[in-house]
Amino acid sequence: MKLTILFGGASFEHEISIVSAITLKQKLSQFDLSFIFCDGDHKFYLIDDKKMKATTFSKAEHKNMPELTLRNGAFIQKSMFSSREHKNIVLNLIHGADGEDGSIASMLDFFSIKYIGPRSEACTFSYDKRYTKYLCEAIGVKSLKYESFYKNEHKNITLPFPIIVKPASLGSSIGVSIVKDEHDLDYALDTAFEYDKHVLVEPFIDGVMEYNLAGYIANEKMHFSIVEEPQKEEFLDFEKKYMDFSRSEQVLKAEIGEELIVKLKSNFEKIYRGLFEGALIRCDFFVIDGEVYLNEINPVPGSMANYLFEDFTHSIEELSNSLPHSKRVKVTYDYIHSISQAKGK
Amino acid sequence: MKLTILFGGASFEHEISIVSAITLKQKLSQFDLSFIFCDGDHKFYLIDDKKMKATTFSKAEHKNMPELTLRNGAFIQKSMFSSREHKNIVLNLIHGADGEDGSIASMLDFFSIKYIGPRSEACTFSYDKRYTKYLCEAIGVKSLKYESFYKNEHKNITLPFPIIVKPASLGSSIGVSIVKDEHDLDYALDTAFEYDKHVLVEPFIDGVMEYNLAGYIANEKMHFSIVEEPQKEEFLDFEKKYMDFSRSEQVLKAEIGEELIVKLKSNFEKIYRGLFEGALIRCDFFVIDGEVYLNEINPVPGSMANYLFEDFTHSIEELSNSLPHSKRVKVTYDYIHSISQAKGK
Repeated sequence: MKLTILFGGASFEHEISIVSAITLKQKLSQFDLSFIFCDGDHKFYLIDDKKMKATTFSKAEHKNMPELTLRNGAFIQKSMFSSREHKNIVLNLIHGADGEDGSIASMLDFFSIKYIGPRSEACTFSYDKRYTKYLCEAIGVKSLKYESFYKNEHKNITLPFPIIVKPASLGSSIGVSIVKDEHDLDYALDTAFEYDKHVLVEPFIDGVMEYNLAGYIANEKMHFSIVEEPQKEEFLDFEKKYMDFSRSEQVLKAEIGEELIVKLKSNFEKIYRGLFEGALIRCDFFVIDGEVYLNEINPVPGSMANYLFEDFTHSIEELSNSLPHSKRVKVTYDYIHSISQAKGK
Repeated sequence: MKLTILFGGASFEHEISIVSAITLKQKLSQFDLSFIFCDGDHKFYLIDDKKMKATTFSKAEHKNMPELTLRNGAFIQKSMFSSREHKNIVLNLIHGADGEDGSIASMLDFFSIKYIGPRSEACTFSYDKRYTKYLCEAIGVKSLKYESFYKNEHKNITLPFPIIVKPASLGSSIGVSIVKDEHDLDYALDTAFEYDKHVLVEPFIDGVMEYNLAGYIANEKMHFSIVEEPQKEEFLDFEKKYMDFSRSEQVLKAEIGEELIVKLKSNFEKIYRGLFEGALIRCDFFVIDGEVYLNEINPVPGSMANYLFEDFTHSIEELSNSLPHSKRVKVTYDYIHSISQAKGK
């Protein structure tokens, strides 16, 4: 089966998208893969698969490879006298801006290219953590209390310390700080505001139980990964997370009871159904006093959370065969015709 | 001042976007206008302004005009030996799909083209009426009770008749029915499901007071139109609405007290601020027992609600000079460099 991995993007997570793509090249070796790179200038390049290593991009060697543009139904490679179409299903593996903010989704839909990844509306509700809170409230999924701030907004934080301060719209722990008392607050806010004009503050719960679960819908049925209990640290800093994106060994199941697994899956399905169709997502949950709280939604998880699936190749194949198709409205000119006829023209 | 009107789109409201554009050509005659048409196949054409009449499009004469493609910073017009850039500020005047669902917004942002119109997140919250409800709930703006349905979902409606049945994501009254008793329900649902896979049901309140208000932020300040009391009919059917989109005569202010005007403006501002910056939107409200309820948000209102503004030309000019700019993240390769150095490569 043919599949194109689309990666890179003008994003703070540009480098980890490259790492993700290199990992998937290995994990999806049974596919007939091709690779399209979106660089920091929003140009697309077809990458020779023998050159799929990190230094190709850091040394800008991709600029010598064929540039592609988006047209109806395909990425187009133009040469002097001809043009070649690349019209495989795309796996959107751009983390953060471009890939998770709805840009890539909207463009692939606009140009009728089938893809694995979150649709534009799903991006809105997962990219900005404030909107994830709106979603949770509306669909009855618990999440932690929060307060949000605009840059330069002078508003007191009413949540008691310790708190966690996050840019509203970034993943991979970028710009995130734990603040134990008033003292460190200004620095934490400044750090977060470097990355986003909205910042979110939540209670920080030391030693909270964390569980990650991934899944997708194929053939109208939910398919879940195993539940993982992620590595316990205050939180993963960027460098650790960066290495984390190259994970390819399957992890061990969390040692939790069936009742909790059912609760996690039921919360996941409430979030996914009707919004995330077409994507394989990972939801990170907290469990407090036996209750499940959504921490965050990763609509393009690092290396597609391959390490949580027992047969990842089969999962991607099954999802590829079950993608929603964006139906384009057929334009008619009935009113204009009837008006011009009435005028006798 | 130069301005490009972008109109058309593969949308059920394609024809009314053409009418809107023709109306704005007249209303914004003090601008140096150009016109870009998006046809039903998602191709862009530069329209000769002498040909800006409805039959140009119904007769497909636009296909003889120059085709444009999107590139960084501009629409590009290629000819045999050269290419010309069109890099004016764009006014997104595509109603419904493409223009209001976030597609056009995402693409213009991706290619760093400045535009008047809702950004992608704002589109999510206004295009699908279910998400407008989520927004209202989160920001404390009242809206009518509702129930929503997927196609083929067998769920009983618990709201008492009469009810109004709407496709979740269309404007201009397309697919909308008032249902007075059980008898007419199936037909109304079938009609709505022709246009969308989600349908919304709300109470229908006969003779409810309706008020429309438009506005925008420029120079960090809210600017409001006059309040209009729209024409009283059960609801405007498509043909009436179609004619409505060509409105260019300023309407009379609604005869309501200052207190209600303040309430309407305060609800408008809650909806707009932090989400709709860059757009001129119209909010349609109900007033029931002195309380304001949001009915719907029109993020690309018909002919830009020009008829509600005292000096529409000035409003568009002011907004054009105050557009948010999407800042593209600067990509770095710090981690890849540090890792390759550590490896001695």
